[in-house]
Amino acid sequence: MGRWPADARERLRRAAVELFVEQGFAATTVPQITERAGLTTRTFFRHFADKREVLFDGDEAPRLAARLVADVPAGVGPVELIATGLHTVAATRFDGRRDEVRVLRGIIRSDAGLAERDLRKRAALAAAMRAALLERGVDGPAAALLAETGVTVLFVAMDEWLDAERERPLGAFVDEALDALRGALARPAG
Amino acid sequence: MGRWPADARERLRRAAVELFVEQGFAATTVPQITERAGLTTRTFFRHFADKREVLFDGDEAPRLAARLVADVPAGVGPVELIATGLHTVAATRFDGRRDEVRVLRGIIRSDAGLAERDLRKRAALAAAMRAALLERGVDGPAAALLAETGVTVLFVAMDEWLDAERERPLGAFVDEALDALRGALARPAG
Repeated sequence: MGRWPADARERLRRAAVELFVEQGFAATTVPQITERAGLTTRTFFRHFADKREVLFDGDEAPRLAARLVADVPAGVGPVELIATGLHTVAATRFDGRRDEVRVLRGIIRSDAGLAERDLRKRAALAAAMRAALLERGVDGPAAALLAETGVTVLFVAMDEWLDAERERPLGAFVDEALDALRGALARPAG
Repeated sequence: MGRWPADARERLRRAAVELFVEQGFAATTVPQITERAGLTTRTFFRHFADKREVLFDGDEAPRLAARLVADVPAGVGPVELIATGLHTVAATRFDGRRDEVRVLRGIIRSDAGLAERDLRKRAALAAAMRAALLERGVDGPAAALLAETGVTVLFVAMDEWLDAERERPLGAFVDEALDALRGALARPAG
């Protein structure tokens, strides 16, 4: 695909987010989105399955996670691997977009169906990380635990990042969340 | 409610699970369930909102989590609290029911809508644990991280428990999962 379709995708995305904010997600229709973007509904459906998918970036996160894991040298341990992956995601996909991501979070929280879709997205990301860890020889239960923990750390850190008064890189919040969890678990459980 | 309604609820639940296993979740209707249970659809809808809810126990898990946390003495730390709670859940709600829980897991995995409902159940459980930890004075990010980690440990342990050749108490798998996570996180991340 050339330059124009990519541009159409971004115009549709912006028009949709504007309308979701102005009038709510439920009240917004695909024809309203395409009218604002100056494009046809046919073009819309070439890029997105429905208006919900506009908010979920074609779910490239699982593929991204798999690629990130593949790029890390073989000797790197699983926790370092996850920390490195989360830092790459933070720096390349989130830093500099805080206001926009905060708007997207508000839209997702406003609608039960979107919140459910978001849970599925997180589960898919955890499944991709788990598969990547298994492929590197991490055993089954440890791979499941670390993959879920990585997703937890990312989303807790993201909320802290979005809610912080002063903007700092998301990676700093990832480190703080990982350290907090580590510290809590290092104390005896009973 | 007296003895009869409780009995009706259990008869409906058993009939539904039998039919889900025999002919699939999607193909099973509420009239088929009530016919097998020897009850009316009116009775069915007094107990369950729809056939999906038969599998989710009226979602009492969040209330149970809140009660468990309230029962633990004030001086107990958050990780010990979660470990204690998971042991209570394991012993009172799961041990001795392995075959049945394995059947339920198979049904849930067979249907995308049920799997999604299961994700929402896990999120609700994490939210309840998080609220209970906040109420005990655990700070925001730590409460979120530990609540999500508790849910992760429970469900990873449950898969191990269900897949193990030899039956052991679920609590033993909870301890192993918690130790595995602790061990992995204790090693330096980078």
